[in-house]
Amino acid sequence: MSRPSGRTPDQLRTVTIERGFTKHAEGSVLVSFGDTRVLCNATVEERGPSWKKDGGGWVTAEYGMLPRATNDRNRREAAQGKQSGRTQEIQRLIGRSLRAAVDLNALAGYTITLDCDVLQADGGTRTAAITGAYVAMVDAIEVLKKRGKLKGNPIHGQIAAVSVGIYNGAPVLDLDYAEDSACECDMNVVMNEAGGFIEVQGTAEGHAFRREELDELLNLATTGIQQLLQAQREALGK
Amino acid sequence: MSRPSGRTPDQLRTVTIERGFTKHAEGSVLVSFGDTRVLCNATVEERGPSWKKDGGGWVTAEYGMLPRATNDRNRREAAQGKQSGRTQEIQRLIGRSLRAAVDLNALAGYTITLDCDVLQADGGTRTAAITGAYVAMVDAIEVLKKRGKLKGNPIHGQIAAVSVGIYNGAPVLDLDYAEDSACECDMNVVMNEAGGFIEVQGTAEGHAFRREELDELLNLATTGIQQLLQAQREALGK
Amino acid sequence: MSRPSGRTPDQLRTVTIERGFTKHAEGSVLVSFGDTRVLCNATVEERGPSWKKDGGGWVTAEYGMLPRATNDRNRREAAQGKQSGRTQEIQRLIGRSLRAAVDLNALAGYTITLDCDVLQADGGTRTAAITGAYVAMVDAIEVLKKRGKLKGNPIHGQIAAVSVGIYNGAPVLDLDYAEDSACECDMNVVMNEAGGFIEVQGTAEGHAFRREELDELLNLATTGIQQLLQAQREALGK
Amino acid sequence: MSRPSGRTPDQLRTVTIERGFTKHAEGSVLVSFGDTRVLCNATVEERGPSWKKDGGGWVTAEYGMLPRATNDRNRREAAQGKQSGRTQEIQRLIGRSLRAAVDLNALAGYTITLDCDVLQADGGTRTAAITGAYVAMVDAIEVLKKRGKLKGNPIHGQIAAVSVGIYNGAPVLDLDYAEDSACECDMNVVMNEAGGFIEVQGTAEGHAFRREELDELLNLATTGIQQLLQAQREALGK
Amino acid sequence: MSRPSGRTPDQLRTVTIERGFTKHAEGSVLVSFGDTRVLCNATVEERGPSWKKDGGGWVTAEYGMLPRATNDRNRREAAQGKQSGRTQEIQRLIGRSLRAAVDLNALAGYTITLDCDVLQADGGTRTAAITGAYVAMVDAIEVLKKRGKLKGNPIHGQIAAVSVGIYNGAPVLDLDYAEDSACECDMNVVMNEAGGFIEVQGTAEGHAFRREELDELLNLATTGIQQLLQAQREALGK
Amino acid sequence: MSRPSGRTPDQLRTVTIERGFTKHAEGSVLVSFGDTRVLCNATVEERGPSWKKDGGGWVTAEYGMLPRATNDRNRREAAQGKQSGRTQEIQRLIGRSLRAAVDLNALAGYTITLDCDVLQADGGTRTAAITGAYVAMVDAIEVLKKRGKLKGNPIHGQIAAVSVGIYNGAPVLDLDYAEDSACECDMNVVMNEAGGFIEVQGTAEGHAFRREELDELLNLATTGIQQLLQAQREALGK
Repeated sequence: MSRPSGRTPDQLRTVTIERGFTKHAEGSVLVSFGDTRVLCNATVEERGPSWKKDGGGWVTAEYGMLPRATNDRNRREAAQGKQSGRTQEIQRLIGRSLRAAVDLNALAGYTITLDCDVLQADGGTRTAAITGAYVAMVDAIEVLKKRGKLKGNPIHGQIAAVSVGIYNGAPVLDLDYAEDSACECDMNVVMNEAGGFIEVQGTAEGHAFRREELDELLNLATTGIQQLLQAQREALGK
Repeated sequence: MSRPSGRTPDQLRTVTIERGFTKHAEGSVLVSFGDTRVLCNATVEERGPSWKKDGGGWVTAEYGMLPRATNDRNRREAAQGKQSGRTQEIQRLIGRSLRAAVDLNALAGYTITLDCDVLQADGGTRTAAITGAYVAMVDAIEVLKKRGKLKGNPIHGQIAAVSVGIYNGAPVLDLDYAEDSACECDMNVVMNEAGGFIEVQGTAEGHAFRREELDELLNLATTGIQQLLQAQREALGK
Repeated sequence: MSRPSGRTPDQLRTVTIERGFTKHAEGSVLVSFGDTRVLCNATVEERGPSWKKDGGGWVTAEYGMLPRATNDRNRREAAQGKQSGRTQEIQRLIGRSLRAAVDLNALAGYTITLDCDVLQADGGTRTAAITGAYVAMVDAIEVLKKRGKLKGNPIHGQIAAVSVGIYNGAPVLDLDYAEDSACECDMNVVMNEAGGFIEVQGTAEGHAFRREELDELLNLATTGIQQLLQAQREALGK
Repeated sequence: MSRPSGRTPDQLRTVTIERGFTKHAEGSVLVSFGDTRVLCNATVEERGPSWKKDGGGWVTAEYGMLPRATNDRNRREAAQGKQSGRTQEIQRLIGRSLRAAVDLNALAGYTITLDCDVLQADGGTRTAAITGAYVAMVDAIEVLKKRGKLKGNPIHGQIAAVSVGIYNGAPVLDLDYAEDSACECDMNVVMNEAGGFIEVQGTAEGHAFRREELDELLNLATTGIQQLLQAQREALGK
Repeated sequence: MSRPSGRTPDQLRTVTIERGFTKHAEGSVLVSFGDTRVLCNATVEERGPSWKKDGGGWVTAEYGMLPRATNDRNRREAAQGKQSGRTQEIQRLIGRSLRAAVDLNALAGYTITLDCDVLQADGGTRTAAITGAYVAMVDAIEVLKKRGKLKGNPIHGQIAAVSVGIYNGAPVLDLDYAEDSACECDMNVVMNEAGGFIEVQGTAEGHAFRREELDELLNLATTGIQQLLQAQREALGK
Repeated sequence: MSRPSGRTPDQLRTVTIERGFTKHAEGSVLVSFGDTRVLCNATVEERGPSWKKDGGGWVTAEYGMLPRATNDRNRREAAQGKQSGRTQEIQRLIGRSLRAAVDLNALAGYTITLDCDVLQADGGTRTAAITGAYVAMVDAIEVLKKRGKLKGNPIHGQIAAVSVGIYNGAPVLDLDYAEDSACECDMNVVMNEAGGFIEVQGTAEGHAFRREELDELLNLATTGIQQLLQAQREALGK
């Protein structure tokens, strides 16, 4: 078996994390997993979520894809008048994942919104988005800290995400579009720096995962995420 | 640790699967997991999916919850003018899960729609829906077979679903609402009769799963699903 | 002339009114007019209607039909993003009818919403809904009374509804679907226990009602509604 | 008892029916019932209704109210992104009423749309709309006849509509806004030239109609509609 | 070159401005530019715009076209569930133009909405709407003044609008539909009584304007608008 | 008078035009006017516009702004369920402008869609979008030519756009956000390489343009656009 890109089964694509990509956002990161490029902008607003009774802050995400980020043009969701089920599913995933790294009580009075917009898609947009959005969120919270607005440190963990799947019968890490579209089962995994699992979303329309395959995929994901966490730390200068 | 319902950690709620609940649908199942009751109606339509090039048939699902299925009234989605992200996520999950049990080529020319409407909610509505919708789908395909419309048998597997989670620090099977709302991480698992995993969706907003917890939860799910598959077979008279 | 069901012209279908059908709602009634089954859930909310200046409470209704309540599947309104004109017309009718039995001033500070969802349709869903929703509303108000929240008794009347129409040239009571779809003119009538008319909605696309036919139909409706009012009282244990 | 306008109980407001009000429509009628003014434009399109299997034509209606047709400004439905339940109810009523005067088979291949837009409202807009739209429809069908497009005559009846209600305890004909807003029960009646009832829609939120009141209201409506039918004939030069 | 209507290049169509066309609105003007007829209703509401920080009032506009105002029927925007881009562009233009004649601070606490609804279209509906809406706005502000609600005079200018374009190679004033649909470039011009330009919107899909053509068109517009301003003053009795 | 940026009145910001910014689109240009950055992707689809009777092709545009392209976050239009009036106005402007440079008959059977998405906004996004989209469109048509799909050359002109306005009493070229937000009147001008005006959109909410100011602004725009046309030619290697 060989991967279309010539990578080894446990090899990530080239990952880059560019901070300060745009000038207005409190955090602005262009993340690339190979040819997948996602712009992650973090916005800080001085308002807590009105529906939340406990007084804490909030972290949420929105996801979008430019119409021609993909090989064929997708219809613009704003023009269609609604977000697809896929879009909503992804933005809920990003938001939940990021909240798992944050102490919302320490963010009291603030809402951070992560806008993850895919400029170019080549598989794995949601995992790239989570990985980049984490860095943008850290930058945004740093701005709040510098303004003296926060007492404690809302960041209590580090998270990153990667996809894994069975391609041509073998488990592989970080699927690109050529692999993703040919593969019958894949899994998105979000983990923290302590090796804990935040989200595990495996889907098999064709071939069901055997338990040992599942175990191998989780191992691959664990390895890949350690490298992504390292890339985040380097980007943040830590 | 004790569960609010007094169940043991690996104990399902009482499960009932009542076929023929309404008279119009080709398959109509009222499934109960304890106080969670979902009406699963299968509709057969003589039209293939227009967007599908390969000529095969299609299986899809829609999910809804009556406004007062829950403790507080939810706003009616039809009145709000859109389905929530949660609803779309669930109905996409149900559809994918059911398609994993079906040979779509053998369904050529037909679309089966599973309407899963929650009459009463007490946790686990999506797993009950999948488990009940499978039986409704089998009944609907049986109708097609009796009409002599199909050559082969589109059903090539059996699937069921259950939730698992960490409650009060311990892994438990089939969470009810009291457990679900107090629990910091839970997982929905869909499996087939061969022990293969169709969907694994674990979410941890608060406490990240450790790998060994993940393993235990998958074990619990495997046990529970075997009982659900058995309940389906009994309901179908097999 | 004979009716498809073999009923006499002035014969209702079997009517059942089952209270406590679901557990969360303050009032929950499953009403059946023959094969027509409607779940009527009453929700009490501690908020008056903001647009109402006089300080009184409010009673309103929403109506829905499960997609496969009917012989052919109807598209789900939540998925289409709007309620049809027919749905809105019916829910406005149910709300108006119920308010005719209630002293809204005695409900000050409260809104009662009646969700009427058709599980199975066989003609007459709106009249069944009104008849069942009345009982659910009484149960919900009883809950408020027991909580000591009300001073007076908001219920000042009893109402029920039935359809009548000309089938095969003769006036008949309580049309089922076979009659309804073949009939060129029908009328929905809502009355109170004093014999007063709350709503009279007669529609003739094909054959216009002659005045004497109209008179006969009103007589039939009056007879039928007396039986329905009696069935409500029995269900309520009065 | 005296009416705010000084009219006798069985007196219509001044009714005018002006044909050819705008130049593009195949039929264009400005109808006035006192200060209520509705522009009824009939459009003929050379397309049958696609959903109709029997090959006949179709007559349908749409209803709108200019935002400031009323004493307080109503929000524009186009800006709100949907038509209210009231609007849909009224346009369904207008369409059904007009179809009762038409042989749809004789209209095969054509759809006639009646746009009824209220320029100024003072009670009774729906009955004025029906009465005016009938005349616009006749003009539009005349255009089709002159083009030699029709074999038979699709018009097989004449219809008009009026409101009646109990005002200050007494039955009155053709309620204006002052009466309508003070009245607890009113009824819209559509009849044909043979004295047949096409639609009867009586609504009593406060005071239920007694049977003898209902009878008197139907008598009043019958009288009023005869005058309206005469006004239509005069407008049409018959 | 000759114009379809026989007008000279610098000749306006017959312009009429009829005040008090409907009875409810604070200002109600039916303006005609030839066969183009637009009803402009001004509504005064005692509420400032919530999003405006400076405390001033607001003037805004909404635009609509009756479905059969045009030669072919247009779909009703309320039924389609949204306003077209063209409609929004026009109503934004009307609102901006009117605000250029008003001191919003002197309107503090009030919002004036101009509803411009086209009853019949024959080219130039937006310029007729602006010209008529100005008069309706003046009437509405007069009502406020008479109620003693205003300290100063919010009207600090007079505005009117007209279209110009190149038809058959020559610049012409006030295009009707026959010219508009045949013309490759046209311009809408809004000016005030001091000869200042408020809006200049020139569009050339086919033939680009040469600079000297642009100059000639601006001259024509200036001439036409002087006549329109005079017609407004006469209508207002000044 | 001095400009916030220190530029002279007739000085453009630094303009860059980067082709091939993303890999999927037939034309992909990142255009910058100073800190304003717009990604313009051209998509070729092999379908003519269905509503067009003359058989020609079509060029259209869609416009969007990432939520945090601006100083404060704007709500995502896809999440709001509709495009604002401003967005629609701009995308109609871009489409019209580009069509003025194209022979649609030579594009028969093809539709080119220009997606202009603002990554970072600092004033003048619509003029940057037009200027960049022209280059993307040329690249896309080049792809079609190379595939041998076109007989003639659909490009019959070159267009670019710039804004001008009165800032601190003096006419200036290419307003940035600091100028734009302080300026009471501005104008967007689209011109072709022959000095013809395609679009002229001047708006004065506060201070009306005097005729001589208008003339000066048009002169400034003419100068600026010559430089932009030159920048386009250089980017295209001509």
